[in-house]
Amino acid sequence: MSEITLVDYLIEQLEKLGINDFFGLPGDFNFNIVEAIEKNNNTNWIGCTNELNAGYAADGYARTKGYGAIVTTYGVGELSAINAVAGSFAEYVPVIKIAGVPSTKNIANNDVLHHNFAEPNYYAFKNAYSNVTQTTAYLTRENAKEEIDRVISDLINYKKPVYLAIPDDICEMKIKNEPNIIKLKSDEKNLSKALNHIMDLLKKAKKPTVIADILCERFEAKKELIDFLNQTNYPSATLLMGKSLLDENVKSYMGIYLGKNWNKKIYNYVNNSDCIISIGTIYSDLNTFGFDFNYNPSSMIEIKGTYCVVENIQYKNVLMKDILIELSKIAPVFDSTYPRETNPLEITIEENKELKSDYIYSKLQNFIKEDDIVFSETGIVEFGFAPMKLPKNVKLNNQVLWGSIGWATPACFGASIARKDKRVILITGEGSHQLTAQEVSSMMRYNVKPIIIVINNSGYTIERVLCKNPMDEFNNISSWNYSKLTEVFNGEACSYRAETNKDFDRALEQAQTEQRNKLCYIEAIVDKMDLPQFAKITFGNKLSNVPLNA
Amino acid sequence: MSEITLVDYLIEQLEKLGINDFFGLPGDFNFNIVEAIEKNNNTNWIGCTNELNAGYAADGYARTKGYGAIVTTYGVGELSAINAVAGSFAEYVPVIKIAGVPSTKNIANNDVLHHNFAEPNYYAFKNAYSNVTQTTAYLTRENAKEEIDRVISDLINYKKPVYLAIPDDICEMKIKNEPNIIKLKSDEKNLSKALNHIMDLLKKAKKPTVIADILCERFEAKKELIDFLNQTNYPSATLLMGKSLLDENVKSYMGIYLGKNWNKKIYNYVNNSDCIISIGTIYSDLNTFGFDFNYNPSSMIEIKGTYCVVENIQYKNVLMKDILIELSKIAPVFDSTYPRETNPLEITIEENKELKSDYIYSKLQNFIKEDDIVFSETGIVEFGFAPMKLPKNVKLNNQVLWGSIGWATPACFGASIARKDKRVILITGEGSHQLTAQEVSSMMRYNVKPIIIVINNSGYTIERVLCKNPMDEFNNISSWNYSKLTEVFNGEACSYRAETNKDFDRALEQAQTEQRNKLCYIEAIVDKMDLPQFAKITFGNKLSNVPLNA
Repeated sequence: MSEITLVDYLIEQLEKLGINDFFGLPGDFNFNIVEAIEKNNNTNWIGCTNELNAGYAADGYARTKGYGAIVTTYGVGELSAINAVAGSFAEYVPVIKIAGVPSTKNIANNDVLHHNFAEPNYYAFKNAYSNVTQTTAYLTRENAKEEIDRVISDLINYKKPVYLAIPDDICEMKIKNEPNIIKLKSDEKNLSKALNHIMDLLKKAKKPTVIADILCERFEAKKELIDFLNQTNYPSATLLMGKSLLDENVKSYMGIYLGKNWNKKIYNYVNNSDCIISIGTIYSDLNTFGFDFNYNPSSMIEIKGTYCVVENIQYKNVLMKDILIELSKIAPVFDSTYPRETNPLEITIEENKELKSDYIYSKLQNFIKEDDIVFSETGIVEFGFAPMKLPKNVKLNNQVLWGSIGWATPACFGASIARKDKRVILITGEGSHQLTAQEVSSMMRYNVKPIIIVINNSGYTIERVLCKNPMDEFNNISSWNYSKLTEVFNGEACSYRAETNKDFDRALEQAQTEQRNKLCYIEAIVDKMDLPQFAKITFGNKLSNVPLNA
Repeated sequence: MSEITLVDYLIEQLEKLGINDFFGLPGDFNFNIVEAIEKNNNTNWIGCTNELNAGYAADGYARTKGYGAIVTTYGVGELSAINAVAGSFAEYVPVIKIAGVPSTKNIANNDVLHHNFAEPNYYAFKNAYSNVTQTTAYLTRENAKEEIDRVISDLINYKKPVYLAIPDDICEMKIKNEPNIIKLKSDEKNLSKALNHIMDLLKKAKKPTVIADILCERFEAKKELIDFLNQTNYPSATLLMGKSLLDENVKSYMGIYLGKNWNKKIYNYVNNSDCIISIGTIYSDLNTFGFDFNYNPSSMIEIKGTYCVVENIQYKNVLMKDILIELSKIAPVFDSTYPRETNPLEITIEENKELKSDYIYSKLQNFIKEDDIVFSETGIVEFGFAPMKLPKNVKLNNQVLWGSIGWATPACFGASIARKDKRVILITGEGSHQLTAQEVSSMMRYNVKPIIIVINNSGYTIERVLCKNPMDEFNNISSWNYSKLTEVFNGEACSYRAETNKDFDRALEQAQTEQRNKLCYIEAIVDKMDLPQFAKITFGNKLSNVPLNA
């Protein structure tokens, strides 16, 4: 039996999952890990500007390539990253969080070391992480091999982050190179019971409707979903989190469900369905536009990643993929009519006018091309993207459930590292961008070239819309010259500042040409109360007291 | 009995502790809190660029003014700040962490809301915080008043962070305006027993030596410590965390204890003492230069904030302040000789040479004036400051125990808000600065004018010194034009870039004049392996294989 160092074993297993790039910062307790990553021919160390950003980058990488990894030092480094990992947890993004921690000897002695407390607690940070991960492991000489196998198995099976603490002095310990990663399989009995139960409902259904969402992608069942839909012809809609999941590839795709305020025919059709088949959905407040969705768990079919629930009966250990494959073979074909609403945003063509959000999003709708990877930041930007018609095979990433502002900039960096062959586009408000803007310097350092569009609306516009008095001081932020940021970051980039329609058109045109060679950064200035149409409709009532051009 | 809204009650109690400024970011679950802070005539809302920075700023504010507060939204906001709060916990900095959380109705319904998980866990974030705070409270209608009183009592008594979650819908609930903050008092019986035990040791001692450290300041016993020392004439030294605690105000102050490599007479004197009196010390790895301190708990006197330990017997509920007041009255006076070593750094005066760290720190030693507040970032900078001779009443802040790189920049912002009447100086390496540099924009927004010195040594020099191969790629970072940062941040500032001794002199001279009107930002360029003298000595062995001018 061949042997291998613990840390090389870990890296090899992760590389098999497609993790070729590890994000993080070095620290004196993780040198052994970082050095091993640098030495390995198949893996790269990607140094970030801080750990929260590294966590977001690993999230963006995992959304793009399947799995991601972040490596930090213990205490300080790992706690800085916890919000990013919690976001991956909320949104089923499988990221492994690795911390280099003090030696087993230090731990046994309870030594008072830096990055810990005056009364040391070596497990405090693992304990903190246990609230926001699928599982945690603190390696020892005795459990190391088994625990690595266990956490990687969980990462693969549940598509949620796992936490691994590696004491400094066991990194180079030799272990057997005999992976024992256990992949979850459907329980055949439960699968058959679930299918029977589902078929009972489908056979009776006059208006079956599929609501598909982001977890279909996360649980690697997108192909099976599309096959199932094309086989059965069930009318289908996506929720906002899964916006780019379905497109013209599916002939029975009605469009995105955006509540009562948009795509009304779809809204009415869905809410009058006699059999909702939820596949990988998350019925959160924002994903349902304020719970504006008439679903009833006691009469519906919910297919989740590793289980399903039919009329409130849960069938455990039943994989989404398997259910969809089987249903494709036996589900009745639908042959009635259903609405189709995919109104593109209207394009206004007035040149040289003060720039407005509606202009920006209508232009972006044309700018985004097949196969682009797009990151849409939390806040007003989501409302700009929600009703947009996207070309085939665009991958739109958002964070509708976790909603941590600042996420999109480093996540775009992570995706750019994951797929250097693809065009990656980031659209963010400037309020969110400020939280994590330094990660643009990492993009320049590693020579990736996303197109970054920063919509500068002078503060937290989403909060102005939501709070009592939009002009409250706390909605203001520091005023930056965003388009000068790339000069500080000292590399080659194209930077634009757009105040008019014409400026914005020109910036997009130039970005179109330049993006092969350089990172392109566009600051787009709009009024502080300017909103895209869908946001105006959504927040209509709240806005009635807001002065125009406030 | 008068009544008051819950949130106004909380703000009033905190204002009594000197918290006039609340750091944070607004979010849709904390509007009621932030609005109340803005409305209150005695308190200000200080918007930061992200929550980690807000936490560091609150820490810097508390180090300067006694107490600090950070307000975030739940989930995303609070988790981003947790590392900063953990640092305050490690280093006994009393910061209250307030989160606005969803309504009691949402919680009761277990609604799937943004900033939480698809399977909601409303207590996950409080649970994470319970690992890094003195206490946590999740308010309800029933417990609100009592819980606020309890956490503020703990904040005051234990000088450690406390966590408070306030559901959105109870912020404006009326409660009795009848504070019940319980301040810890010494248990008279235990105090007397402890004093007797201590006196037994002091009477026998031939070479009693006081080691005083940062907790004397944190537990508000600095005056009592100085009185005690001036009364007894006990030879005293400080550790690095408490470097600026004692100065010429104390005639028996020997100097700072820096292990065997510096101030050798003090090192020998301390390690040959027959009676160590530790007052507010933290014997961590870096604070003792690798446990280079010959202390023996079974024969020493340890006076902590709220208890003391004599010859390994613990006396609980005995306050540091009370012990020192009583000891001043009864302890024998010391009348033998002891060393005094406070060698100032030597000043080299060659002009127009390539800038070196030794030049920078020797110049800073002259530049820093009485009453300055100084922030020294973790890393090489600490080694520059350790042996420096500081004028009277300088407040030097470092983070020797927690050691979270990036802390010093926002902490300097917090201190600048706390004491607008004082000169605040930040010295940071550029590697650390990148983590949190955007907080410089908050300084400019709020018109505070610290002097910022960024030592640019092209990467993580402390890590180069500590890892196997200093030139490993992971020690490199993005290259920035630091002195252009203030242009991006769009306000008035003086910015300098110093490559030679002469440049640096000129920058300091100009900062001296300009700092009353503007923030001054100095980028000081040194070689990537350039170290201040004390670091060279400390890391001597490790450096023997490093090429000069690598």
